[in-house]
Amino acid sequence: MKLTHEASGTFAIAPTPFFEDGRIDYDSIDRLTDFYAEVGCNGVTVLGILGEAPKMEADESLQVATRFIKRAKDKQIIVGVSAPGFAQMRTLAQASMDAGAAAVMIAPPPHLRTDEQILGYFRQASEAIGSDVPWVLQDYPLTLTVVMTPSVIRKIVMDSPSCVMLKHEDWPGLEKISTLRGFQKDGSLRPLSILVGNGGLFLDFEMERGVDGAMTGYAFPDLLVDVVNLSKAGKRDAAHDLFDAHLPLIRYEQQPGVGLAVRKYVLKKRGKIASDAQRKPGSAMSALARSEVDYLLSRVGRVDKRANIS
Amino acid sequence: MKLTHEASGTFAIAPTPFFEDGRIDYDSIDRLTDFYAEVGCNGVTVLGILGEAPKMEADESLQVATRFIKRAKDKQIIVGVSAPGFAQMRTLAQASMDAGAAAVMIAPPPHLRTDEQILGYFRQASEAIGSDVPWVLQDYPLTLTVVMTPSVIRKIVMDSPSCVMLKHEDWPGLEKISTLRGFQKDGSLRPLSILVGNGGLFLDFEMERGVDGAMTGYAFPDLLVDVVNLSKAGKRDAAHDLFDAHLPLIRYEQQPGVGLAVRKYVLKKRGKIASDAQRKPGSAMSALARSEVDYLLSRVGRVDKRANIS
Amino acid sequence: MKLTHEASGTFAIAPTPFFEDGRIDYDSIDRLTDFYAEVGCNGVTVLGILGEAPKMEADESLQVATRFIKRAKDKQIIVGVSAPGFAQMRTLAQASMDAGAAAVMIAPPPHLRTDEQILGYFRQASEAIGSDVPWVLQDYPLTLTVVMTPSVIRKIVMDSPSCVMLKHEDWPGLEKISTLRGFQKDGSLRPLSILVGNGGLFLDFEMERGVDGAMTGYAFPDLLVDVVNLSKAGKRDAAHDLFDAHLPLIRYEQQPGVGLAVRKYVLKKRGKIASDAQRKPGSAMSALARSEVDYLLSRVGRVDKRANIS
Amino acid sequence: MKLTHEASGTFAIAPTPFFEDGRIDYDSIDRLTDFYAEVGCNGVTVLGILGEAPKMEADESLQVATRFIKRAKDKQIIVGVSAPGFAQMRTLAQASMDAGAAAVMIAPPPHLRTDEQILGYFRQASEAIGSDVPWVLQDYPLTLTVVMTPSVIRKIVMDSPSCVMLKHEDWPGLEKISTLRGFQKDGSLRPLSILVGNGGLFLDFEMERGVDGAMTGYAFPDLLVDVVNLSKAGKRDAAHDLFDAHLPLIRYEQQPGVGLAVRKYVLKKRGKIASDAQRKPGSAMSALARSEVDYLLSRVGRVDKRANIS
Repeated sequence: MKLTHEASGTFAIAPTPFFEDGRIDYDSIDRLTDFYAEVGCNGVTVLGILGEAPKMEADESLQVATRFIKRAKDKQIIVGVSAPGFAQMRTLAQASMDAGAAAVMIAPPPHLRTDEQILGYFRQASEAIGSDVPWVLQDYPLTLTVVMTPSVIRKIVMDSPSCVMLKHEDWPGLEKISTLRGFQKDGSLRPLSILVGNGGLFLDFEMERGVDGAMTGYAFPDLLVDVVNLSKAGKRDAAHDLFDAHLPLIRYEQQPGVGLAVRKYVLKKRGKIASDAQRKPGSAMSALARSEVDYLLSRVGRVDKRANIS
Repeated sequence: MKLTHEASGTFAIAPTPFFEDGRIDYDSIDRLTDFYAEVGCNGVTVLGILGEAPKMEADESLQVATRFIKRAKDKQIIVGVSAPGFAQMRTLAQASMDAGAAAVMIAPPPHLRTDEQILGYFRQASEAIGSDVPWVLQDYPLTLTVVMTPSVIRKIVMDSPSCVMLKHEDWPGLEKISTLRGFQKDGSLRPLSILVGNGGLFLDFEMERGVDGAMTGYAFPDLLVDVVNLSKAGKRDAAHDLFDAHLPLIRYEQQPGVGLAVRKYVLKKRGKIASDAQRKPGSAMSALARSEVDYLLSRVGRVDKRANIS
Repeated sequence: MKLTHEASGTFAIAPTPFFEDGRIDYDSIDRLTDFYAEVGCNGVTVLGILGEAPKMEADESLQVATRFIKRAKDKQIIVGVSAPGFAQMRTLAQASMDAGAAAVMIAPPPHLRTDEQILGYFRQASEAIGSDVPWVLQDYPLTLTVVMTPSVIRKIVMDSPSCVMLKHEDWPGLEKISTLRGFQKDGSLRPLSILVGNGGLFLDFEMERGVDGAMTGYAFPDLLVDVVNLSKAGKRDAAHDLFDAHLPLIRYEQQPGVGLAVRKYVLKKRGKIASDAQRKPGSAMSALARSEVDYLLSRVGRVDKRANIS
Repeated sequence: MKLTHEASGTFAIAPTPFFEDGRIDYDSIDRLTDFYAEVGCNGVTVLGILGEAPKMEADESLQVATRFIKRAKDKQIIVGVSAPGFAQMRTLAQASMDAGAAAVMIAPPPHLRTDEQILGYFRQASEAIGSDVPWVLQDYPLTLTVVMTPSVIRKIVMDSPSCVMLKHEDWPGLEKISTLRGFQKDGSLRPLSILVGNGGLFLDFEMERGVDGAMTGYAFPDLLVDVVNLSKAGKRDAAHDLFDAHLPLIRYEQQPGVGLAVRKYVLKKRGKIASDAQRKPGSAMSALARSEVDYLLSRVGRVDKRANIS
């Protein structure tokens, strides 16, 4: 079941579980996949930036993607295929689709500067993977260093019919959402699913600005599902109340560079992955940092019992 | 009264108040200065990044600094003197000190890359302003793009006896604080005041990591003062409870590029500045953004009555 | 006499002469100005990047500009007015024009990324200096880190009737020149003077691509004049022969960071400035580097006697 | 025969020959390899930046490397193994060495900023490939954006006994060479081969500063061999005379982004590769650019008959 512009709800960004010695932990992939389904995620995105994709070899990437796909059954899996060159991108994209992926995700490489360079890149990427492969455009300037204006995003989408979703994680990004939704109202942009990332730091207001849901890796995907659902149900205060209870931890987890360590630490505490190890080069948490996260969990747990896991 | 390494507490980062037509609003400077004193700030930092310093002419900068200094009486004023060249830096630093400033603040220019370049720059800057002028080192990679390791910061401080304070706003930054405090424990770094910025986004845990206080521009400096004091008094839960109530707004205000507009909007609502105008080029808030801030204020106001200002 | 889009020939980029102690050497300004006139330059550009502009205070900048203007008589002086803010830019631009400058030059600040940001910046800059002030757009990505496509340059020029010249120093840049000249042929770009910089490294072919002349600081402006004139006279081989004789030195002088030291060293040897000192922070030449330049001069001198100055 | 710190002479940087449809042209690899041997190169470096390495899939990379190795017989082949992650780097490095490579080459990834980050990266990279694999450190800030001071290079080399060579292509770089050679004189740096790149733009003086030879891709490796040999023989004027005759073309070929197109165009004209096609995304030459190169060849040909190839 391929991804379309009607996709909405919550897609979890999955970490790749490793053992301490760097081998891939396939059993934890299964457990994670089941977990995401149980809490109500509509799909899972694998091999993204926080999936440690660049640390894997080509065949490993496909094996990881395939394992998620097989286990996910009717849930949609999106596979990150960003690569230094189009040859690798095409190969992983087509193999993933053959294995049953719903779509692929592409991020701009850091050397792109001008609007023309960005447009040219996505024209070629879209051509490389094939016009029958639905793809997600990732817009994450903080990490990727490429700045795409709403007009450029519109042009990318209008140029490539197979681009069905925007993973929006610009910061600040609220006005950008309103501008893109405005483009659709004035008829200059076709229907497009917009899911938001950036760790969920602005999910509360992003929902109110009109996005279709969340796609991020916060260690409580259940919280993302709830906030998305409450917001869609028009329960504004309830959505903010729940979101605000988690915000101190969301903020802590959304630290560049060290965030993945926090995320894996919490997922391990929750019993969803066997080890919080990262493949080298990885970041580690100090004992002090772990105790800070434990303290934050205990505070969240006063409002949301799912956080009582210590 | 010059700044020393014993400085602690809360230093507000002051915006520069302008009228709609771009003229400087000196009466609002007075009002702001009084406000900061009333809520318990220990000092004020002016002409920082969010003080729109680069938009001013040389003589205007001095006039703004002087106005703050005259009004502040016994409170310490720190003057941002970052400039494209050492000649302008020296002139503003010396004139500010002559007018009664407590210290100056220097940020690294964006072209610095290697440790040697950074060390060389601050050696020359420190020499340029004169060895009798106490100065604050600003470490803000997110905005300034210059990355300084703890070892480099230590060397800058040890090389320049007149460097008395670090304005710490690296992100992530908690381990950096612990490393610097560890350097002091092992005797390799002399006493140094560390105040934290980055909008206060991690003030709760930064205090616990051992900093001396806050130096940032959040529109509720009274909140900064309270959190610093509660934390210093060892009231951990109370500090976090109050901080967490403000975090949704702190996060909203700490958006790159648009944060200053939010800050001025709130300060105007609080009656501390006459206009929220920025000198060109400035960012404006949409009606929707203003309503989002109003909503956040009403939510904060449920816990902290000072936020009931709509 | 204000600069127009009909400007052509050679404009020297003047260094700012300093004494060893950092004071400005006004007598050398006079000597330099006379020298540029004697060798046939059509004008001089002052306070550019290699004029050490950021190292000067506001009043010094105006004094330097004014000294060049007074001495130049009927030659046109273009004043670099790039500044961190529009207030300083406007002040220097208007004071320079009042003193008799022919135009000002504006470079984009390094934080600009997207086409929209670049266009917005120059719209505001052009407005800030006033619509009656002719200005030169500087396009130098290697140093300024801002990449402007031909389409963006066209839009800047079409948006601002007072933009009369492009200082082209992109690298590679030959196709860019052809594209811009093509825009003029198809009627989408109005008449515009294009002078080329980048140390003159591609002056030979840039002339053939249709530019109007040179604007750079090579220590032999007489060579630039000759190559421009030979090329305009259609003497292709002669232009290349002379250019190629100088290319080893042109290349040596066009090294980022250290080029200015070489340039001042040669200008001092030629007797045009009293000292090759730079204001701090400056780069110095090693004894070995000086001997390399002497060797290059002796080699150039076999073809062009003006280089026999040791 | 593994590479050691005693390596010297000329190593050609080989382009990867493609057919128009993007397939790898293995016959041209053989022809190129023979050509490099015939003109006196001591070795060949493959899969470097200008070898379009990122555009290839993992198995293609190994096939290309292996083809060069098999054909080169007693000439040493160095294989570029820079990769987004250490897993791929290790795999290609070990497979290349198994196939008979003499060494591998590693460039720093663009996100590295501080000295500590750079040192940490090469420590891990060196560990990843295995301590028995000799490796070449590439220092090319213009393209790679990572700035390594002489002290950092020394530390990398001293930390990793298997680092046997520096590919020096910093710009400006003459003083850097002198500093590194000075480190060896004062005993703080162990013996290290230094070959220079950057298109050969400063090869004349770099030889005089004490490097061991050239490693770059100029379409006349025969010229590189001659200049290296003349310089080693102490024939200074003759080395410069020959070098200067080629400099206009060297300069033209060393343009960022378009240089590879020029290089392949000339190599094709010389009959060494069947097509000058690049794999997508590639840069193309305009008819005007080709005529400019033809003109430059005819001018070089007046002094060096090998350039008479039109």
